Amino acid sequence: MSTQPEHPAVLIPGPVEFDDAVLQAMGHYSEPHTGAPFVNCFGDTLSMLRKLFITEDPASQPFVLSGSGTLGWDQVATNLVEPGDNVLVLHTGYFGDSFADCFESYGVNATQLKAPIGDRPQLDEIEKALKEKSYKIITVTHVDTSTGVLSELKSLSELVHRVSPDTLIAVDGVCSVGCEEIRFDDWKLDVVLTASQKAIGVPAGLSILMVSGKAMDRFNSRKSRPNSYFASWKNWLPIMQNYEAKKPSYFATPSPQLVHALHTSLTQILSKPLEERFAIHKETSQKIKKAITELGLKQIPKKPEDQANGMTTIWLPGGMAPPEILPNLMKKGVIFAGGLHKEIAAKYIRFGHMGVSVTDPKRSDIDHAIAALKTSLAEVGYKN
Amino acid sequence: MSTQPEHPAVLIPGPVEFDDAVLQAMGHYSEPHTGAPFVNCFGDTLSMLRKLFITEDPASQPFVLSGSGTLGWDQVATNLVEPGDNVLVLHTGYFGDSFADCFESYGVNATQLKAPIGDRPQLDEIEKALKEKSYKIITVTHVDTSTGVLSELKSLSELVHRVSPDTLIAVDGVCSVGCEEIRFDDWKLDVVLTASQKAIGVPAGLSILMVSGKAMDRFNSRKSRPNSYFASWKNWLPIMQNYEAKKPSYFATPSPQLVHALHTSLTQILSKPLEERFAIHKETSQKIKKAITELGLKQIPKKPEDQANGMTTIWLPGGMAPPEILPNLMKKGVIFAGGLHKEIAAKYIRFGHMGVSVTDPKRSDIDHAIAALKTSLAEVGYKN
Repeated sequence: MSTQPEHPAVLIPGPVEFDDAVLQAMGHYSEPHTGAPFVNCFGDTLSMLRKLFITEDPASQPFVLSGSGTLGWDQVATNLVEPGDNVLVLHTGYFGDSFADCFESYGVNATQLKAPIGDRPQLDEIEKALKEKSYKIITVTHVDTSTGVLSELKSLSELVHRVSPDTLIAVDGVCSVGCEEIRFDDWKLDVVLTASQKAIGVPAGLSILMVSGKAMDRFNSRKSRPNSYFASWKNWLPIMQNYEAKKPSYFATPSPQLVHALHTSLTQILSKPLEERFAIHKETSQKIKKAITELGLKQIPKKPEDQANGMTTIWLPGGMAPPEILPNLMKKGVIFAGGLHKEIAAKYIRFGHMGVSVTDPKRSDIDHAIAALKTSLAEVGYKN
Repeated sequence: MSTQPEHPAVLIPGPVEFDDAVLQAMGHYSEPHTGAPFVNCFGDTLSMLRKLFITEDPASQPFVLSGSGTLGWDQVATNLVEPGDNVLVLHTGYFGDSFADCFESYGVNATQLKAPIGDRPQLDEIEKALKEKSYKIITVTHVDTSTGVLSELKSLSELVHRVSPDTLIAVDGVCSVGCEEIRFDDWKLDVVLTASQKAIGVPAGLSILMVSGKAMDRFNSRKSRPNSYFASWKNWLPIMQNYEAKKPSYFATPSPQLVHALHTSLTQILSKPLEERFAIHKETSQKIKKAITELGLKQIPKKPEDQANGMTTIWLPGGMAPPEILPNLMKKGVIFAGGLHKEIAAKYIRFGHMGVSVTDPKRSDIDHAIAALKTSLAEVGYKN
């Protein structure tokens, strides 16, 4: 039995449903941020993140800051590039535009390589772009939450290392870390940034990053100081290193409760092989996508290999808008999200399937949601 | 009976002890950040902040972002000044240096007006500085957590309005909002920034600000865009306005659990007149300071009017260092903090007395801590 009061299942692309033990850790009694019990907890949490990102290179550096996932963009833009530098942003939806806007606010020139809605930039286009201009960073949204488009990281990294080896690869993994396969070392990634409230299964409030030794070298050799303060690794690097070495340290007060919750969730996640976790998210996603297809509905990403495994975007049938169907789902205890991509927001809905709703065999959230979607569509007059 | 497990009383200058109901709110079940229940909760929270800061001017603008208190400095530095501008930082300890460093990282010239340790810049010195140069902002640390020095805001504001009326007044209220008297409208303040984990009584993870209409006008008439992204009010202003109007809105995912905890704590705080809250913090502080004096010990701020009401800094007797006394206190279930001000860190300890440890009549944290301090000093051979 869950210790949580009965409530609708949150099946949006984050925040997700949380495990009881994680929510209990959120209510941890007060502790000093520099006392041994919390320092040990934070240190272990940072070490566990290395396992989650599958990196054994000791030069890799994890960061956990209080903030939204968005703060990860600021950390990339203020620490790894300098004003006037050029970056290439691969665009698969809303979050490409926003990441580019973040770079611009720091005085960095962001060139976007855009694909039609539901598609992603192809390797030959990316190769052409990388050959035309020198870019300090290439960014890719692993899963764009506005479209459900999944990007392919391994072949992208191979291309970048072949064509433009000095270009750092920064992955926006907000909607992918914890449910999509990511091999930080094997795939030679330089930054993977994420947030707590999606497949990591912890309430919102933490910006989480893994940064490669190569990227840290770039940071350490920058000419100007980072043009931000709270997001500056000059301030945070010694703190993260000290916490992981179990030594007290202070720059700005971290959130012991959120870190305890992250510790609890990572302990649960790492108690099983990550391969199993990736596999069950994939299987569940296939089941959902099959059900959507059987209902006669289409997803925004057309090609199966471009479809995310932790969320599904669903085009609504002819002229139907999200407010016509979402309240019916809510009455059945299921919360989906409306559209987010500006050009098409009124035409589709989003179904998030990450974390305990997928991995906990005691939960029936997913089957219940599929059934609720069928019934709700029928209620509003949709016939397949 | 508390629902929290037995644990040492956290009596450092933040994080503080938390109320059971606040910790329970931290474990709130998942909700979408754009759904009506959370939107209403966040909207009410923003409105309650107006009462906490004692502002009825509708032009005043509250902000609540995921982050540490430090993020409030970034918000001031990136939104209210532009690179090349001059600001005057009144220095009463560690946090003056840090706020100045924050401005410099954004390309803003920060001039510090420093006082000897334990003292604060005097009005005639401030008047002289304001007449020598034109400053866009003057900042003051209401209570510097490294020294326990309390600054006087009312007369400072009168001076600034008389001598340099275009200079905005920004108050670092991290260690003062919720325990020291602050009258945002009456005292004509322009920014008061704070964090959740001190006298507001909510776990760390929220940066909380109140900004005047005059400061928002300055923001709206700036020439360049803010040179940050996550801290930019261009991104957050419409979100805060929408939440307070109970309309869903999205820029970056807020933390529903932390906002629920803030809602719970503000509801408790505002259920009684704020005057009572200020008074009980002052009375408790007087009691502690009297006990310290009776023990023959001295505080860092020499003048009683310069001594904070939510914390007390205590010079250790001849040659004693914090590690000699803090473990004895810990054995008695009391956690004080060591020194923070670099020049004197090894010579003093800090006793935080904010929030439920002070206001909840069922708690005996303060009396217990005073007794534990007396006994611990005797144990290590101190004789008055």
